[in-house]
Amino acid sequence: MNPQDLLVYLVTDRSLCLGRSLEEVVARAAEGGCTMVQLREKEADTGEFVALARALHKLLKPLSIPLLINDRVDVALAAGVEGVHVGQSDMLPEDVRRLMGPDAIVGLSVETEAELLDAQNRPVDYIGIGPVYPTQTKKDVKGSPWGPDGLRRAVELSSLPLVAIGGVQRDNVKDVAGSGVAGIAVVSAICSAPSPTEATRELVRTMKEGAR
Amino acid sequence: MNPQDLLVYLVTDRSLCLGRSLEEVVARAAEGGCTMVQLREKEADTGEFVALARALHKLLKPLSIPLLINDRVDVALAAGVEGVHVGQSDMLPEDVRRLMGPDAIVGLSVETEAELLDAQNRPVDYIGIGPVYPTQTKKDVKGSPWGPDGLRRAVELSSLPLVAIGGVQRDNVKDVAGSGVAGIAVVSAICSAPSPTEATRELVRTMKEGAR
Repeated sequence: MNPQDLLVYLVTDRSLCLGRSLEEVVARAAEGGCTMVQLREKEADTGEFVALARALHKLLKPLSIPLLINDRVDVALAAGVEGVHVGQSDMLPEDVRRLMGPDAIVGLSVETEAELLDAQNRPVDYIGIGPVYPTQTKKDVKGSPWGPDGLRRAVELSSLPLVAIGGVQRDNVKDVAGSGVAGIAVVSAICSAPSPTEATRELVRTMKEGAR
Repeated sequence: MNPQDLLVYLVTDRSLCLGRSLEEVVARAAEGGCTMVQLREKEADTGEFVALARALHKLLKPLSIPLLINDRVDVALAAGVEGVHVGQSDMLPEDVRRLMGPDAIVGLSVETEAELLDAQNRPVDYIGIGPVYPTQTKKDVKGSPWGPDGLRRAVELSSLPLVAIGGVQRDNVKDVAGSGVAGIAVVSAICSAPSPTEATRELVRTMKEGAR
């Protein structure tokens, strides 16, 4: 994968889209320059999940924005998307890689330094690290938030590109951008923004400036 | 697939195993002659689901008892089991067949006559039809119970083998056996039996007698 695709990575949450459809929010985020999208669904039946994945893929593929599926290799294979993102209690990265093939994008979440170090030897393309800040979106976290200093340390420890997730918003993205991570993954900062296009555009601008 | 494998088909539910492990209950059911097993998990994380599938497969494969996974093609592919069973809101049978390959066993649940007729044109090996009787295990059913007479009518309408599910117990299995279905699928009749071995043995005996 191209590590630049990690710059501003939208992770979806339909419940945070303020009544707008997921397709609508994702289309607006794409317009604003988001570089990758992860479809995350914890309630949908498999049939609906596949249909959603196909709808988003139809929208994103012509724009060359990779679409990943959270947790579900079956949905990713059925919809023919670019990759899968797994957490520590999901399918083992080795199994994901075997089923998805060598060209798929595979990401893995880590929350602790031990998990970060362990992830270095897994067949994944990038690591999602978090939470950066305290967050309401994901409550079952193991460690304390990494913060920009923690991220800087993590970047030194990791040979795989890192995407920072958890509590990243327009107010704090500058600090995150300066930490050396390859990108940020955001949920509410885009899904719940009055204008997902503008919100994404601003995050992209700040991340590009921070990377200099 | 061999339609005789449908004769007494165990569908698992860990919460109904009376504190015994799933491996224990499945091993005892296999001992009693159950002909096929479906691993059904609605709460487990994917990692645990795959581990459970592997554990059951290790136990069943040497006995040549096919193992299917409810809903999840990803778990089936990762564990290398024999097939997948889907419901009406799960992945489309066409997608399941494409991902699982021509040799896999694919089953589809139907609850109404319209679904039964529609299923005839799908790439599946058998149809799970239910509920036969009112049941506590599955509460979100669309139609009224089929009963033995309904099953007899369904058998006439179907060119695919039928497995009757929902409320089948030792007290009523004789009526079901006489309806012409290829087999019964049971959850609590085996999972919650004081002796899963004996319970299975008795169901197998009655089904074989009924089929004469």
